[in-house]
Amino acid sequence: MLEKKALLAADEAPTKFQLKVPKGTRDFGPKSMAIRESVIKTVIDCFKRHGAETIETPVFELKDVLLGKYGEEGGKLVFDLADQGGELLSMRYDLTVPFARYLAMNKVAKMKRYQIAKVYRRDQPVMTRGRYREFYQCDFDIAGQYDPLIPDAECLKIVDEILSSLGLGDFEMKLNHRLLLDGMFAVCGVEAAQFKTVCSSVDKLDKVEWADIRNELIKEKGISAAVVDNLEEYVRARELRTSCSTSQQLIDSLKTDERLMANQSAKKGLEELTTLISYCELFGIAERVAFDPSLARGLDYYTGSIFETVVKDFSRRVSNHVVAPGKPGDTTEPTEDENVGVGSVAAGGRYDKLVGMFDSKGADVPCVGVSLGIERIFSIMELKAQLATVRTSETEVYVASPTKGQLQDRMKLCRTLWDANIKTEMPYKANEKMLNQMQYCEQRGIPLAIIVADSELQRGVVKIRNVVSRQEEEVPLVELVEAVRSRLLQWRIDDVRSQL
Amino acid sequence: MLEKKALLAADEAPTKFQLKVPKGTRDFGPKSMAIRESVIKTVIDCFKRHGAETIETPVFELKDVLLGKYGEEGGKLVFDLADQGGELLSMRYDLTVPFARYLAMNKVAKMKRYQIAKVYRRDQPVMTRGRYREFYQCDFDIAGQYDPLIPDAECLKIVDEILSSLGLGDFEMKLNHRLLLDGMFAVCGVEAAQFKTVCSSVDKLDKVEWADIRNELIKEKGISAAVVDNLEEYVRARELRTSCSTSQQLIDSLKTDERLMANQSAKKGLEELTTLISYCELFGIAERVAFDPSLARGLDYYTGSIFETVVKDFSRRVSNHVVAPGKPGDTTEPTEDENVGVGSVAAGGRYDKLVGMFDSKGADVPCVGVSLGIERIFSIMELKAQLATVRTSETEVYVASPTKGQLQDRMKLCRTLWDANIKTEMPYKANEKMLNQMQYCEQRGIPLAIIVADSELQRGVVKIRNVVSRQEEEVPLVELVEAVRSRLLQWRIDDVRSQL
Repeated sequence: MLEKKALLAADEAPTKFQLKVPKGTRDFGPKSMAIRESVIKTVIDCFKRHGAETIETPVFELKDVLLGKYGEEGGKLVFDLADQGGELLSMRYDLTVPFARYLAMNKVAKMKRYQIAKVYRRDQPVMTRGRYREFYQCDFDIAGQYDPLIPDAECLKIVDEILSSLGLGDFEMKLNHRLLLDGMFAVCGVEAAQFKTVCSSVDKLDKVEWADIRNELIKEKGISAAVVDNLEEYVRARELRTSCSTSQQLIDSLKTDERLMANQSAKKGLEELTTLISYCELFGIAERVAFDPSLARGLDYYTGSIFETVVKDFSRRVSNHVVAPGKPGDTTEPTEDENVGVGSVAAGGRYDKLVGMFDSKGADVPCVGVSLGIERIFSIMELKAQLATVRTSETEVYVASPTKGQLQDRMKLCRTLWDANIKTEMPYKANEKMLNQMQYCEQRGIPLAIIVADSELQRGVVKIRNVVSRQEEEVPLVELVEAVRSRLLQWRIDDVRSQL
Repeated sequence: MLEKKALLAADEAPTKFQLKVPKGTRDFGPKSMAIRESVIKTVIDCFKRHGAETIETPVFELKDVLLGKYGEEGGKLVFDLADQGGELLSMRYDLTVPFARYLAMNKVAKMKRYQIAKVYRRDQPVMTRGRYREFYQCDFDIAGQYDPLIPDAECLKIVDEILSSLGLGDFEMKLNHRLLLDGMFAVCGVEAAQFKTVCSSVDKLDKVEWADIRNELIKEKGISAAVVDNLEEYVRARELRTSCSTSQQLIDSLKTDERLMANQSAKKGLEELTTLISYCELFGIAERVAFDPSLARGLDYYTGSIFETVVKDFSRRVSNHVVAPGKPGDTTEPTEDENVGVGSVAAGGRYDKLVGMFDSKGADVPCVGVSLGIERIFSIMELKAQLATVRTSETEVYVASPTKGQLQDRMKLCRTLWDANIKTEMPYKANEKMLNQMQYCEQRGIPLAIIVADSELQRGVVKIRNVVSRQEEEVPLVELVEAVRSRLLQWRIDDVRSQL
């Protein structure tokens, strides 16, 4: 009892600090990193297949650069650096605003770039719901004055390729258009000043019943019941117009609405959606694309097409382990419902006016981009990986010895193998028990062990052991590298076959 | 004139902020990123060849974790986050202290890990000398209780492999031992409390004349002339003992010094150096290793072997463009001479007591590691790359059209090529001038263009154009993917041949 008290006192002593990472952050161990690396490789391979470049920007920006870009609520979540003299700095909150700053500052008028980096939000962390204060974003954007909707379609094609290669299961890419939303709201009688707040309610339609949204709009946001009932017809069009089975049919059905078509904004939105869907057909992705008039997302800076992709199978299963993808607009209302779409794994849209905010003459650079919910994708892949063994290192050969005194021979062999670009390890002890050495190989999934024994060395041979089958073969030292290479090749072929 | 004034006024208006990155930080554009990526790939390939895992830690730590780890001067350079309520946080200053925190917190007793990430120092930036406030570190460490010096030797082997693969030219890996330094200082009559300050003076011997160091020790640091003259014999041993042409000869020569060998610390240091050099011989790197009794480095936490690698050719040429590699000890005196060794590209050593500082019971995990001066290596590679064209994207095929109205055909072809995993781009304009399309290919180094023309499409063919030779060939559409693949293969073979 006394001992326990003494321990407690020691823990509470001011010189002693708690050994932990900052609230809302995590270390990633080797297993997480192995999964993350393989996901990131797939993603980057796709970006490169589309000719994208990459850039890097500092982890913090001048406070003024971020100021006023994330709405009132988002702004409160920015991490500031201490004023230690000099400039006032803030940690980046997303990758889009730094990208726009980069384009304006360097007078870059055209660029297809990706960036994968951590961003920082002083949010109330909800680890069980996967809301962290430090998390990765993975953005692909096309900047430049081009013909309408061609780059937009390529963004959707990229999402399609990435989700398909990762094997995440069925997914749906929802589409909408900022101009159509604006037009719908105007036609229904929503005041321009209320567009944003109405948007954020409407956007919840994939998770919440219409009755609740109606209630929120009327009681909390003071929209008249007549206006809300007007709205329902449009935002629930996908549910209500049951005769429309394709996106184009739904668009065509809205096009017959004279009141809507009298609004130039709505009209242009519907026309652009038609073009975008036709491009999706050319890219072979139309069947995964769905026009959804309730998709609103944050409207802070989107000016044209907006999209969001939902993975169907995992949407419920992983909702407790994930972080939402975040284009800035997402977090104007960082409530429990911040995560736009429960299974949302990619989101984006066109933002033609953001770069101009940074240009001294207000020169615009039209942009469209998509942010992958890479943390959510990591979580899904980690769930899938629980079923399989994840190798955290790639070692191919372990140089072991059953007898004492072989340290020097093992070191020489390691050198030979490393210099032949074969991934090799050996025990760091002069005399390690053979059992420990073999256990290490099995635990790490190392396919081959080379057994270095005195008696055999004198005959100029070593044994190569297949760790799984435990079969051993003698090989002359002079043929070792070739023998290892051919066995590794066979091991890789077997590995590929086992996956077929 | 009036217009100019108005412009100036606008620039100075308080609502207007200067469009820049924070002091001491940089954006990296596509060309820098392409070079950085290729260097990092070489480095990671080497780490993986040695069976290393990787981890990630948060960009900031609790302030208490960093407190007292970087000496008095280093501590002043830590970036703090603003107190916005909650924990007090600081940006990481290096990767070693977070690694030690990780090991202690997760009770990890053995790990071979690498980590490549940015660190932050609120240093007075000297961009012309390459001193930044945000820069990459690239660390490889082996943690665990093993037989002496085997992991230390592997760290040196890794440096040797990396520098050789990058083709940085001649380099020398200097070695010394903390225990030998302690012993030398004690034998010469330096007070224990002065070890550290004497160390930092002695360490400058590769850049400064002995006379200046002697002066500094006597006049600035108050060491007696007799003690300093005693020291000279040891720290300048490499210069003075001209009969010793190898490291082992220099060690043997010191071993004949009875006064030194009577000191147990010095004796053990020399014995360990002998073992380490014998291991370097087994690894085939001994000819690039040199025992240097003046190599002191920061002594804050090194407990055994210490090493530093200097690239000979580039040491002067790039000294104006570089950032020093930094294990914490380096920066106890962040003066103009902070960069330890003008051409230093890797540095490290053994630190057996750091993890214990984080463990509640003080349990030690012995560690040895090396930090690559990756920013310096980037600079050297950028200098080398100035001579060559650096491709910032990897596009292999550009789908062009000389005639109007081919947008849809081009989009369909792109889809086919992307789906066949061929890196493809096309103009985002429906009708782009042919000259612009061909210029884009040439500027970007894209090897093949596919020319889609109406008349040819009607015959079921397109042309494949070799961008360099400008030769064109008709290919049936149904054979396009195979035709592109075989030409890309030929292009790669030609590219490899041109490098031979």
